[in-house]
Amino acid sequence: MTVGDLTERELIARIQQRLAPAPAWMIVGIGDDAAVVQPERNQVDALTVDAIVDGIHFDRAFVPPEAIGHRALAVNLSDLAAMGAAPRVALLSMALPACVPLQEFDGIIDGLAALAVRHHVHVAGGNLTRTPGPLTLDVTALGALKRRQTLTRAGACPGDEVYVSGAIGAAAAGLARLRAVDPHRLTPDDRHLTAAYLWPEPRVRLGTLLGRNRAATSCVDLSDGLADGVHQIAQASGVGLRIEADALPIDEAARGILAADGADPVAAAVAGGDDYELLFTVRPRTRGRLRAAIRHAGTPLTRIGVCTDDRQVVLVRTTGTEPMPSGYTHFR
Amino acid sequence: MTVGDLTERELIARIQQRLAPAPAWMIVGIGDDAAVVQPERNQVDALTVDAIVDGIHFDRAFVPPEAIGHRALAVNLSDLAAMGAAPRVALLSMALPACVPLQEFDGIIDGLAALAVRHHVHVAGGNLTRTPGPLTLDVTALGALKRRQTLTRAGACPGDEVYVSGAIGAAAAGLARLRAVDPHRLTPDDRHLTAAYLWPEPRVRLGTLLGRNRAATSCVDLSDGLADGVHQIAQASGVGLRIEADALPIDEAARGILAADGADPVAAAVAGGDDYELLFTVRPRTRGRLRAAIRHAGTPLTRIGVCTDDRQVVLVRTTGTEPMPSGYTHFR
Repeated sequence: MTVGDLTERELIARIQQRLAPAPAWMIVGIGDDAAVVQPERNQVDALTVDAIVDGIHFDRAFVPPEAIGHRALAVNLSDLAAMGAAPRVALLSMALPACVPLQEFDGIIDGLAALAVRHHVHVAGGNLTRTPGPLTLDVTALGALKRRQTLTRAGACPGDEVYVSGAIGAAAAGLARLRAVDPHRLTPDDRHLTAAYLWPEPRVRLGTLLGRNRAATSCVDLSDGLADGVHQIAQASGVGLRIEADALPIDEAARGILAADGADPVAAAVAGGDDYELLFTVRPRTRGRLRAAIRHAGTPLTRIGVCTDDRQVVLVRTTGTEPMPSGYTHFR
Repeated sequence: MTVGDLTERELIARIQQRLAPAPAWMIVGIGDDAAVVQPERNQVDALTVDAIVDGIHFDRAFVPPEAIGHRALAVNLSDLAAMGAAPRVALLSMALPACVPLQEFDGIIDGLAALAVRHHVHVAGGNLTRTPGPLTLDVTALGALKRRQTLTRAGACPGDEVYVSGAIGAAAAGLARLRAVDPHRLTPDDRHLTAAYLWPEPRVRLGTLLGRNRAATSCVDLSDGLADGVHQIAQASGVGLRIEADALPIDEAARGILAADGADPVAAAVAGGDDYELLFTVRPRTRGRLRAAIRHAGTPLTRIGVCTDDRQVVLVRTTGTEPMPSGYTHFR
């Protein structure tokens, strides 16, 4: 059985069966022309949308359906976390080739639903369309935050310290292993790396903590890699950033994979996307506020550099200082 | 020049140049990890997402770029209108083949931006991704409404009268003409019909009026055709509906096109989608409230039938009563 054997209504019913019951603040859920949501009192709405496309952001050949659904929601929760918003609602818009097996469809929904439950997100609606092209998942996420706790990319000042959560490079290395290795021959290190790629954990708790205790002056998520994130903060805040290569928390198992064929593992780790960590800046005199975040966020935080007033974005190595790679590529 | 010659950042800048400036209630707009919006005081949020795919919902071969952008937003504003919500914010997620000419990209944004301005909608963010598949536009729209004014599909009672706005069948006939006729040889009637297909006008004003004066007991938009809308209200409200074929406001010019090759124009008009009119039910004793809606909505409203307690959905013709076509098809 494929999705092409069912009607749109039957597919929507399958999705509804796989979701948690609607919370009290959902006034109208799936099945009407729009969802209706009671906003959080005295809070503002954060809204984001992100799409993942088969062959571009994942590959159905080696990414299990549950991981596809997980990723579609995780990338959006990561965006909300970078604003300091607590996620509440998601809408799922899927463009489905008719040949997608029903079992794969169900797996995608299960993966998305499992992550939604863990973060108290309610899937309130969406859209299904067929497509002659690749499987595409477009998720919109709505979060809530206090207006004065909004974290943007634009608040960094010269002298602020630069931090990153977790480790970088593991997702890029995991993707390389998934492409290269028979899944039955993965080593324990491979399994750690491939899990980092397949099951990115959005830093929802850290993001809301940073917003609430106003520890961070700016914040961005690393969906497009650390180099891109550093440039985003530099441009939005009008500062420079000096990043210390030796301080970067590059995943140990990833380092070997990224250095294969004589490549530079630092360059590969800062360019590699899919890490979904948070990059943020902290004023040195309010550094104490970070302690609570460190205690409760469940992820290590590493100081990797400092903001400067010269608007240069550089990577400092033992061999010298070099421009941070831009990470921008043409749209092909 | 095609979109593939630019970076994602350059394409986003082109979009921003084409949009109206952000209103005061937009706290964070395009260019951060998420948009941040101040909700309307004492109102609730309505949220909807709808995708249009080249080759499925439109055809780049004969739909101009501005009409593609218009349609992507219009289908969502129509969904908000059916809930009684006033639109405020839209997010645009585009999956772009690299070969799309820049001029076409600009035209799509211009068409979307023009409709947004007319309805006071602010495009607050979105997503761009390349795709090996067809051009796909996914728009999320956020609207505001008073909780007790929410219009759903579920409030119709036996005895309620059934109304439809505007005319039906014109969009389906217009699409047939666009497919059949050299664009330089369109008659005036053809131009009226093709405009109905290319530039659907979401009934935003009517929807908010129906919500505010509580004239309607249920409401749905006709994006999937009148037959589908009638079934949606029947199922959600647990009623039957008797629709009078002779009362249906079938567009006069469309009737001839839809009857070509001996087809039944009534069956074609109730099955045809893309009309984006509102179908709604009214309790006879509150019918007076409709007058204000009729005066201010700028569109004719036609009584086409009545709700019944037998749960049957039927089309009444001079030749007899028949089941309303279901309109459901498999997902291919």
